[in-house]
Amino acid sequence: MAYQLHYWPGIQGRGEFVRLALEAAGAPYVDVARGDVSAGQGLPALLNCLQDEAIARPPFACPVLVDGKQVIAQSAAILMYLGPRLKLVGASEADRLWTHQIQLTLADAVDEAHNTHHPLGSGLYYEDQKPEAARAAQEFRTQRMPKFLGWLEAVLARNPKGTRHLVGARQSYTDLSLFQLVEGLLYAFPKSTKRALKKTPLVLALHERVAQHRRVAAYLRSERRLPFNEDGIFRRYPELDA
Amino acid sequence: MAYQLHYWPGIQGRGEFVRLALEAAGAPYVDVARGDVSAGQGLPALLNCLQDEAIARPPFACPVLVDGKQVIAQSAAILMYLGPRLKLVGASEADRLWTHQIQLTLADAVDEAHNTHHPLGSGLYYEDQKPEAARAAQEFRTQRMPKFLGWLEAVLARNPKGTRHLVGARQSYTDLSLFQLVEGLLYAFPKSTKRALKKTPLVLALHERVAQHRRVAAYLRSERRLPFNEDGIFRRYPELDA
Repeated sequence: MAYQLHYWPGIQGRGEFVRLALEAAGAPYVDVARGDVSAGQGLPALLNCLQDEAIARPPFACPVLVDGKQVIAQSAAILMYLGPRLKLVGASEADRLWTHQIQLTLADAVDEAHNTHHPLGSGLYYEDQKPEAARAAQEFRTQRMPKFLGWLEAVLARNPKGTRHLVGARQSYTDLSLFQLVEGLLYAFPKSTKRALKKTPLVLALHERVAQHRRVAAYLRSERRLPFNEDGIFRRYPELDA
Repeated sequence: MAYQLHYWPGIQGRGEFVRLALEAAGAPYVDVARGDVSAGQGLPALLNCLQDEAIARPPFACPVLVDGKQVIAQSAAILMYLGPRLKLVGASEADRLWTHQIQLTLADAVDEAHNTHHPLGSGLYYEDQKPEAARAAQEFRTQRMPKFLGWLEAVLARNPKGTRHLVGARQSYTDLSLFQLVEGLLYAFPKSTKRALKKTPLVLALHERVAQHRRVAAYLRSERRLPFNEDGIFRRYPELDA
């Protein structure tokens, strides 16, 4: 049975980390909120998933993956669940834990990238926190982004199985998430990200390799891949880059 | 062999979620950075753990748990690893995933609580972002904190095994983390947290029960439990509460 992915339509957001795994594995899935209301899909189905009081283990937020009776929220937890099923993680407990640990750190980087345009909270508009965003973005560009990318570079450089993957000798879901993080940073902060990536050639090379992965490349060219925009996590506000 | 926990000395921080699990289970552990330098412990040992280029799978940040050859960072990943070993999680994959999902959501709440005093970034002092912190704290107190607590209340209310625990009929590590979140919120935002908890009686009751757990209560009275202070995640700045 196809997986059901519930995520806000119109943005890549945190749902994209799950979509990339499903797409790279060629797994059947339904992007529920982008489907037809007449088919029981669309936004009402997503809202029902978030608000249905009959769900004993309710999600706090999207993305939510439904696999039969399993309802799973939190993108890193979803990927941990999908990893073995999509053959996107190693077999040992140690490899699975390490892959998940990298994923949680990528998720932290994503949170901090989001924070640059909403430092005072996501309940307020960007327009109501522009000076604060400028200061937060400067801190992120000059301190945090290089730190995260430098750590990913070290993870690749130290991988005993070679520098082509973050974990072991095969692609894992966290390689795909690294691609998405770099892609998002290049969209939001093109100048500073290109500068930072010059110091992390292994990260840059992995980003390129994932982009050329046959099924990922086909997905990126398809209409299923939403473009970046200024409603998502990674937003291009030129005043926040330098 | 005793677990080695590496975390910044002087604050509870994210290390406390791991400490509470170890303490509640009565597991032997060394709080490395608080030990004697002459015994190979103390801050140098912690810094070495973070900077040692011989570690093939390097931590991005503390807390770090070392168990023999296993080096694990990210508090939620550490707890996932410890759960079965300390008998602080259910046996089924579904229970473990759900417990972890709750933990990740608690970690999000912790991040947002931290963000209230450092909205522009943790590289700047609170004193350099006080007006911004006031706006971020208002958003957190009025919108986010009630949303997180309300979700935890729903998780307890819908637990088919009863409302005494977040998952199943036994204590799990995420019950302990709920205690710590509530404890931290009561320290940082006493007025607004007490008000919010009136609407979440099951959360409040679980917080009380964990505090009375024999080993947890002994730990809380001991010198091993650091007091809250204004260097940690939860800080009492009266101007941020209302």
